[in-house]
Amino acid sequence: MAKISVTVWGENVHERKVEFIRKIYPSGMHGCIVEGLQESSDFSVGTATLEQPEHGLTEKVLAATDVLLWWGHCAHGDVQDAIVERVVKRVNEGMGLIVLHSGHYSKVFKRLLGTTCSLTWREAGEKERLWVCNPAHPIAAGLGPYFELAEEEMYGEPFGIPTPDEQIFISWFEGGEVFRSGATWKRGAGKIFYFRPGHESYPTYHDSNVKLVLKNAARWAAPEGPRWIDEAPNIPVDKAPERIELKGQTLHKAGEAGFK
Amino acid sequence: MAKISVTVWGENVHERKVEFIRKIYPSGMHGCIVEGLQESSDFSVGTATLEQPEHGLTEKVLAATDVLLWWGHCAHGDVQDAIVERVVKRVNEGMGLIVLHSGHYSKVFKRLLGTTCSLTWREAGEKERLWVCNPAHPIAAGLGPYFELAEEEMYGEPFGIPTPDEQIFISWFEGGEVFRSGATWKRGAGKIFYFRPGHESYPTYHDSNVKLVLKNAARWAAPEGPRWIDEAPNIPVDKAPERIELKGQTLHKAGEAGFK
Amino acid sequence: MAKISVTVWGENVHERKVEFIRKIYPSGMHGCIVEGLQESSDFSVGTATLEQPEHGLTEKVLAATDVLLWWGHCAHGDVQDAIVERVVKRVNEGMGLIVLHSGHYSKVFKRLLGTTCSLTWREAGEKERLWVCNPAHPIAAGLGPYFELAEEEMYGEPFGIPTPDEQIFISWFEGGEVFRSGATWKRGAGKIFYFRPGHESYPTYHDSNVKLVLKNAARWAAPEGPRWIDEAPNIPVDKAPERIELKGQTLHKAGEAGFK
Amino acid sequence: MAKISVTVWGENVHERKVEFIRKIYPSGMHGCIVEGLQESSDFSVGTATLEQPEHGLTEKVLAATDVLLWWGHCAHGDVQDAIVERVVKRVNEGMGLIVLHSGHYSKVFKRLLGTTCSLTWREAGEKERLWVCNPAHPIAAGLGPYFELAEEEMYGEPFGIPTPDEQIFISWFEGGEVFRSGATWKRGAGKIFYFRPGHESYPTYHDSNVKLVLKNAARWAAPEGPRWIDEAPNIPVDKAPERIELKGQTLHKAGEAGFK
Repeated sequence: MAKISVTVWGENVHERKVEFIRKIYPSGMHGCIVEGLQESSDFSVGTATLEQPEHGLTEKVLAATDVLLWWGHCAHGDVQDAIVERVVKRVNEGMGLIVLHSGHYSKVFKRLLGTTCSLTWREAGEKERLWVCNPAHPIAAGLGPYFELAEEEMYGEPFGIPTPDEQIFISWFEGGEVFRSGATWKRGAGKIFYFRPGHESYPTYHDSNVKLVLKNAARWAAPEGPRWIDEAPNIPVDKAPERIELKGQTLHKAGEAGFK
Repeated sequence: MAKISVTVWGENVHERKVEFIRKIYPSGMHGCIVEGLQESSDFSVGTATLEQPEHGLTEKVLAATDVLLWWGHCAHGDVQDAIVERVVKRVNEGMGLIVLHSGHYSKVFKRLLGTTCSLTWREAGEKERLWVCNPAHPIAAGLGPYFELAEEEMYGEPFGIPTPDEQIFISWFEGGEVFRSGATWKRGAGKIFYFRPGHESYPTYHDSNVKLVLKNAARWAAPEGPRWIDEAPNIPVDKAPERIELKGQTLHKAGEAGFK
Repeated sequence: MAKISVTVWGENVHERKVEFIRKIYPSGMHGCIVEGLQESSDFSVGTATLEQPEHGLTEKVLAATDVLLWWGHCAHGDVQDAIVERVVKRVNEGMGLIVLHSGHYSKVFKRLLGTTCSLTWREAGEKERLWVCNPAHPIAAGLGPYFELAEEEMYGEPFGIPTPDEQIFISWFEGGEVFRSGATWKRGAGKIFYFRPGHESYPTYHDSNVKLVLKNAARWAAPEGPRWIDEAPNIPVDKAPERIELKGQTLHKAGEAGFK
Repeated sequence: MAKISVTVWGENVHERKVEFIRKIYPSGMHGCIVEGLQESSDFSVGTATLEQPEHGLTEKVLAATDVLLWWGHCAHGDVQDAIVERVVKRVNEGMGLIVLHSGHYSKVFKRLLGTTCSLTWREAGEKERLWVCNPAHPIAAGLGPYFELAEEEMYGEPFGIPTPDEQIFISWFEGGEVFRSGATWKRGAGKIFYFRPGHESYPTYHDSNVKLVLKNAARWAAPEGPRWIDEAPNIPVDKAPERIELKGQTLHKAGEAGFK
């Protein structure tokens, strides 16, 4: 079977600028995420980062990507709108998208969901326990009823998202909050998975359960049908499935494209 | 009971520039839509149009609007992005939104749904029959099993939308196509209703069933709870519901706002 | 405005048989729930209990009920299947249904949702904190970001339900679990709300926040459109909206009802 | 890759009793459906019929079945409730279910969806055109924008179903009606697909597009994760993830199973 082509997008700012984060992620956060995916032979994995031309997400790269992972935090505003629209278009065509942690506030995620994506938060290195809401879901395959991260940032409800298609994880936090930590949506032909853990101050992407979830999710998010190419064709009268005759006055001339 | 404050937004281009459309809608399409709503004493109705400053959708107007109706077609691209974001924000706070016909391609609708919103189309003055999919839904109150429009533009599947929360109408077209003509979604606290009919070449907004649907929909879309003000508060350690102590290193300083 | 007609169904077994429960609920659990609803003048409230003929849910009672609340636990199996089907039919017509706590395993709830409705549980009098997932939802009106119950039974994920239409509450438990404690679905024209708290060993229905939620939910669940009467009409050839002629052989004779 | 184990359940009444139907389906309707599936080497296909002991759906057969297809019409009432519950349980564990045509009124389908599943109908051998609502969905793979059946029974809206997870097909009928002809839901770990065509008076299951849809759907409905075994475990105090102490009085004794 052909390998699933995965691109890991990393903002790549904190891990270069902040000493204690560079120590946790010497090859970058995206580098650590790549290493986790490469534990499986199912994937062919590349990377793209903010500082590259077109943020590394050229038409060619996206066209060849089955699943895109997205980690960003302090530089959401620096992502060009044209690249955001390109990613949105590609998701609608069928590319899977896995949005990580602070990516809840990325332009891409907000653009696809249409909501605020807001939440409450606290950076206190507290314990997070992620409960599995559907033990038969492929994203949760191989996990027990729950898994824990000793130190994580807290994200709390209310989480400003549309109702998910499927709820995969809900988190319990030491400080008393809860959060919908794993959820899925579909936009066009593309599958979207949001996965909460992954604050840059902690070694979350080195955790074996987190790695397992990302491998599961990348398999789940891979396209399962043909590419949905966006078009809005005019079907002229003589191509209508049933025989009809033109009635009334028309605004559009024959053969004209619609307004967009 | 307080009246529901409705704003009808009209692009107001075709009805000024094209002679045969001006004859159908001498007071503008938005004017005709307003007249239909004013058949009921439940509403206080205003209008806003593209050519006005801020397209007539100032912060003040939107803050006072319970339900916004949106008709646009040839000038989607002229709507300023900042106004689009303002409408999206207001919908998430709880303002209802009713998107009409060619508004499927408006920036506002695409921004809220996250999909292409594409479809197939034909302007041939053919018969459209709208079937009610849920006779007990308040948007369909007072209708029979179906109603017909003698002449309309055809819109056909596939319609590039996320799965609706509720399917209210499906259209049968004389030329052989079908379309999901009435559907609802929620974004934040705001209810959204898309209603297909309303091509400017035909007298659709003069139709009594169309008027009935718009009155029903404006009642349905009115906010039913408090306003959801967007915020992403930091909950410091000493405000956590459970007593915890700070662990590990932190990226954010105490009292700092999060990245957005 | 006409009052909303509410029927509170109580199993009424534990509170009669178990001394310490009778002390918490001297007028029965249903009696305490009724008292909470009667704090508002919006409702006309009646009760029905398991030991009554037809469990108190005659055709006449159900036809006159806008919203039914359901509390049951040890005697789910004693509810007659015919009454279950009657309730299911009435919900589909538009009656609201609020299922409480151990009612997750009632025949009515399982029949409407189609899933196992299983969960994990522990009766240890532990603290439950219910977080509001949508502060603008009418069911959460008047609540803060969360409310607490000092002693409750724990219910934990995975909760075997179809994805809810809306997530209203998620619970944090002292012992480390989480649970989707408030969620909504629609079946036909009927709105369904599941609300987790309410174990008979604790004074939960005396709690002011719980009372507030039940009042909010009873208003929310009231029918908002006409009644959807179930039928599967044959549309004979001469009543088809478009002129057609009978082709091929037929299994059904003219005027015959369909198989059911 | 292991073959997908498919069981085709047929009522097997009309095709034995009615001469003109036997001529269309000499090996039974289930026999014709099996032949269509066997065009692909992906499946290992068996059959089960109403007249067999346990309707052919023993615990053993169901445990070994990945995807069950269900065709029934005149004898829905003869299907034993215990077998219905067994199928419902198996779907929740992860078995896929494809419900065909008049199976909309089967006990199994109504039990899983919780709604009336009613519709309007006409047996007039009229033309049906099925439009694809999502050209990238694996169930629609290989189809064009639509396909037609020259003679079929009409099913019309309103169709009494919960909002589908995904809308795959919508039908246009010659007589003027429309219908949600292909839709999906999930119950527990099981995927459900309803597919409208297949009236016994017409040679629908000999149609190549119908065969293609059934092959696509059987692949799509196959379990994609582990089996979800139903249980409602008590988590005693000493097994709670967080250390807690028992408070208050308890109804349940230690080690006791919950009420069901």
